[in-house]
Amino acid sequence: MSRTIYLDNIPLETAREKFFLRLNQPVLLRSEQIPTELSLGRVTAEPVFACLSSPHYHASAMDGYAVRAASTFGASETLPVQLKTGEEAVLVDTGDPLPQGYDAVVMIEDVHYIDENTIEIIQPVAPWENIRTVGEDLVATEMILPANHIIRPVDIGAMLAGGVNEVSVRVKPVVAILPTGTELVQPGSPLKPGDIIEYNSRVISGLVTEWGGQPKVWGITPDDYGLLLERIGQAVAEADIVVVNAGSSAGTEDFTARAVAELGELLVHGVAIKPGKPVILGLVKGKPVIGIPGYPVSAVLNCELFLRPLLGKMLGIEPGLRETAKAVLARRVVSPQGVDEFVRVKLGQVGDRIVATPMSRGAGIIMSLVRADGLLQVPKLTEGLEAGAEVEVELFRTKEEIRNTVVAVGSHDISLDILGNLLKERFPRLSLSSAHVGSLGGLMAIKRGECHIAGMHMLDEQTGEYNLPYIERLLKNQQVTVINLMYRQQGFIVARGNPKQIKGIEDLVRNDVRFINRQRGAGTRILLDYYLKQKGIDPELIAGYDREEYTHMAVAVAVASGTVDTGLGILAAAHALDLDFVPLTEERYDLVIPAEFWHTDLINALMEIIRSDKFKVRVAGLGGYDMRDTGKVLMQS
Amino acid sequence: MSRTIYLDNIPLETAREKFFLRLNQPVLLRSEQIPTELSLGRVTAEPVFACLSSPHYHASAMDGYAVRAASTFGASETLPVQLKTGEEAVLVDTGDPLPQGYDAVVMIEDVHYIDENTIEIIQPVAPWENIRTVGEDLVATEMILPANHIIRPVDIGAMLAGGVNEVSVRVKPVVAILPTGTELVQPGSPLKPGDIIEYNSRVISGLVTEWGGQPKVWGITPDDYGLLLERIGQAVAEADIVVVNAGSSAGTEDFTARAVAELGELLVHGVAIKPGKPVILGLVKGKPVIGIPGYPVSAVLNCELFLRPLLGKMLGIEPGLRETAKAVLARRVVSPQGVDEFVRVKLGQVGDRIVATPMSRGAGIIMSLVRADGLLQVPKLTEGLEAGAEVEVELFRTKEEIRNTVVAVGSHDISLDILGNLLKERFPRLSLSSAHVGSLGGLMAIKRGECHIAGMHMLDEQTGEYNLPYIERLLKNQQVTVINLMYRQQGFIVARGNPKQIKGIEDLVRNDVRFINRQRGAGTRILLDYYLKQKGIDPELIAGYDREEYTHMAVAVAVASGTVDTGLGILAAAHALDLDFVPLTEERYDLVIPAEFWHTDLINALMEIIRSDKFKVRVAGLGGYDMRDTGKVLMQS
Repeated sequence: MSRTIYLDNIPLETAREKFFLRLNQPVLLRSEQIPTELSLGRVTAEPVFACLSSPHYHASAMDGYAVRAASTFGASETLPVQLKTGEEAVLVDTGDPLPQGYDAVVMIEDVHYIDENTIEIIQPVAPWENIRTVGEDLVATEMILPANHIIRPVDIGAMLAGGVNEVSVRVKPVVAILPTGTELVQPGSPLKPGDIIEYNSRVISGLVTEWGGQPKVWGITPDDYGLLLERIGQAVAEADIVVVNAGSSAGTEDFTARAVAELGELLVHGVAIKPGKPVILGLVKGKPVIGIPGYPVSAVLNCELFLRPLLGKMLGIEPGLRETAKAVLARRVVSPQGVDEFVRVKLGQVGDRIVATPMSRGAGIIMSLVRADGLLQVPKLTEGLEAGAEVEVELFRTKEEIRNTVVAVGSHDISLDILGNLLKERFPRLSLSSAHVGSLGGLMAIKRGECHIAGMHMLDEQTGEYNLPYIERLLKNQQVTVINLMYRQQGFIVARGNPKQIKGIEDLVRNDVRFINRQRGAGTRILLDYYLKQKGIDPELIAGYDREEYTHMAVAVAVASGTVDTGLGILAAAHALDLDFVPLTEERYDLVIPAEFWHTDLINALMEIIRSDKFKVRVAGLGGYDMRDTGKVLMQS
Repeated sequence: MSRTIYLDNIPLETAREKFFLRLNQPVLLRSEQIPTELSLGRVTAEPVFACLSSPHYHASAMDGYAVRAASTFGASETLPVQLKTGEEAVLVDTGDPLPQGYDAVVMIEDVHYIDENTIEIIQPVAPWENIRTVGEDLVATEMILPANHIIRPVDIGAMLAGGVNEVSVRVKPVVAILPTGTELVQPGSPLKPGDIIEYNSRVISGLVTEWGGQPKVWGITPDDYGLLLERIGQAVAEADIVVVNAGSSAGTEDFTARAVAELGELLVHGVAIKPGKPVILGLVKGKPVIGIPGYPVSAVLNCELFLRPLLGKMLGIEPGLRETAKAVLARRVVSPQGVDEFVRVKLGQVGDRIVATPMSRGAGIIMSLVRADGLLQVPKLTEGLEAGAEVEVELFRTKEEIRNTVVAVGSHDISLDILGNLLKERFPRLSLSSAHVGSLGGLMAIKRGECHIAGMHMLDEQTGEYNLPYIERLLKNQQVTVINLMYRQQGFIVARGNPKQIKGIEDLVRNDVRFINRQRGAGTRILLDYYLKQKGIDPELIAGYDREEYTHMAVAVAVASGTVDTGLGILAAAHALDLDFVPLTEERYDLVIPAEFWHTDLINALMEIIRSDKFKVRVAGLGGYDMRDTGKVLMQS
């Protein structure tokens, strides 16, 4: 198999033009007639006109008596008018047809009963008062809905009211989704190294559903060129769009581009975007075929950029359009010139501005899409964006949800996940969003006004006290409240059975021990340095002191996967991965909250959860935690 | 049947509390286990934790060669390192497991082939470079999703990646919808006066679907108290919520409140809201029963106020939450104190503010919901809101859609509907929203900066010229462009066969002729007054000169329904209702566009449609139109 497949690198807009301009009218905007009752969420193919007027007769708008208006003229408190029921006044309920010969309705509340056959009124009614005339709501021939309109519940009502019992809507485009790759296995299969769970097709299927298409997920096609040709051929015959997932790059088993070229026309292979560069756009028998890479973030992004507008062209709408918002960038983003890069961001409203924090940019991290609140496009003409820049962000959540999110930046602890969970359970409208940048990073975020709370555990070498000395030094001109969240054990995370017999700090300098450190500014790093200094140990002697991870869990993963022998972390992280733990010390973990947020509804709700027994019991249950001061105010500046 | 049913008038908040506080835990927040693949749009009942790590093995992150990092140290252009393939370097594709004993991957792009068994590299790689270590995306035991989360396509992917093949979600509450009323008929039935097409159940069904419930629409229950009791009893046994539509007021056949009281407990009957006052809230066998009035707008509003939060409490979310926006009120709204009133509004972004124009407040006008862009709550403590007031509006459309809407205020003509349609067809993102307040009303809206275009046809008595003299007088300090839309015939709309033999203005003063007028400021009204003056006819002699309608169609409806003999209007309106037409004159209909909008994308798109042959042909096809100057600029100030 030749290795000489090279990817193009054409600009996004050029790729889209090349692709969309080649689509023929026959595959676009097809329509079908369906019962109006079943049309929720469908798109009108043409304007809808009323066949009937509504009301289709003059109807009483009130419960009361139908009268001749002229017979009520002059009625007053001093000169009431009496009317014979059945002759001069006829009882009608709301919606009843106006009896022949009458032209107004007196409301029941304005009627006095004199005897069984007589009513009295003390106010005249005008002709046609309290009557819904024919066509008041809808006149036959009137337009109810325009074309290209997504049908809502009230639209169904209006169409049925107008006698429109069938409606012409766009055909839902059928999207065949072909997962390919010998390494793929179905969810639930037993796993061996190299097996990849095939979940992209399910994600794409959900996207197609949300965008108004009809997904058809095929079984897994192994890396067999002949079979792939055959399957694409079948899929093109049955579907309106074919999506081939993976095999779109230039590796030994990346057959998709060749298959598209052989069966039809390969229009684009490789677009200057990040992630998702190795996308394939082609036509087979006039039908669009899209080949998208296997990394989940690339796959989703390619669907957004190519599949979504394609469905839109077939449906006559722009499906899945998202609101955008202006936000302030919390960190610098570097991005190569010439490439349109799409960066997932966390968003939070802090004070009156929305703060966007760039997230992991790995194309393989589907959790980054799960956790993201929005998407930022770094345009191809720039080399990146500076911290503090105002940017336009596409929103994954509503602004309302963003306003109702507590933004936590700082040191990570599993208790924050529990806190977020209980918060959502008790107040479904609220969320906790948490970015893990270490204790010092959290303090800096507080200083820059980019978060509501910061979790920290920083030991001050001089005083041996936790957190407060740092806050006093670094947040000099800011008023904050500091509360305790918990105390927790820090220690050495080691493989099950502690094979290297690590007992303390001294063991880290051993030749046979590979260590992994936390990043600069992390409380755990400061703790380590404090003990190294106490014992007079030179950090340079520790193999791996320079290798940094950003969370306890990442340290535990490194140990679990055997790439290192130990790292400093918390008991819960060790437990989570079934590792052993050698305790070193207990440390205090506090939350810092700027004064301006302390009495907001958001923080009040958070404090209610922190001080609840439920929270304390859950966290204590993890092991390695002490909740003796949880929720206690330690300082208020 | 007693007439002495009286409605309560309790505040909205009190009604909600009375109702929601009485709901028992057993009917709320039930959960079920379903396959993850089928969970799109469902709500997580508990946090979801990963069962597997992803990747579950060390995987190559690139196509390339697995190497021992140490063997590459020191490689440079001048001192390349050669590696034996199969021994020192093993070919791997993206996603392949890292072979035992190797700890880094060199990208294929960085490899030179020396011979069949040898590769050369000129850059070192660090240990673990280009490798996705175990758990890089997801660590077993890590939380993937919190509870009370609506599952999206990417969430399904993340769960499957984490080995979560079944997920615990909230049970979809089953909502039984019981349409009641002897006057109801199913859509498609032949209609006689008094028959009402039963479409509310279909609207409610759509709302329930959108809010995460499972609707079950029952057949029509006629007004038979025993039968109603029986049906509610059955529905309560089968469903989680029962909605009885209509029969909730206090008329002769309004049985619902009595039935709820007899079967269970009637908690609320009548709430101080407008529309939708006669709502019923009760409990039968612990299950919530909601009785809502029959007028469609009342029905939808009651669903929003009571059914939606009820579904929310059962699902643990707040379904159907809408974005809100600040808007400027275009007209005064008067509303009784003590009542929470909900007013439908049209919205448009004109310049940098959103303008809200209150719409018809009739509870029977479902088209007002179809046409509305948002909902304005007039709080019970006020007596209304003044024009120009800043208000908070709940949005039915996205801000993006509102930004992309051409706001037309002024005289109505059917060609505007055609224009709106063609605009949406050609530019699916754009809409035309049109409020009908007459020519003068349109000019005033331009003056106040509340619209992009105003349609007008006002004859100047002095000069005999159309429109321009008014614009010069009324928009003195404003720069505008005036273009012609079309010329159209105005004349007398009369019943088929012209039974009263109306030939001209002189016939209007006849004793046997009942006339209907247009509102003050309407071009058609001005035209009438011009001819009356010319002929020296006293308007006071015309029966019906004081009765005003706001559109041509409304005039045609009045003629078609026999409440009047004639009114002045356009041929198309007469044709639409199969009426006859006696031509009077041709008039010029122009569009006024403020200079600041003239070169915007929005107006450019509109002008493209106006000047298209398609538009001209369609309008001309209606009859009574002349398109000789369509799109021509008549004045630019």
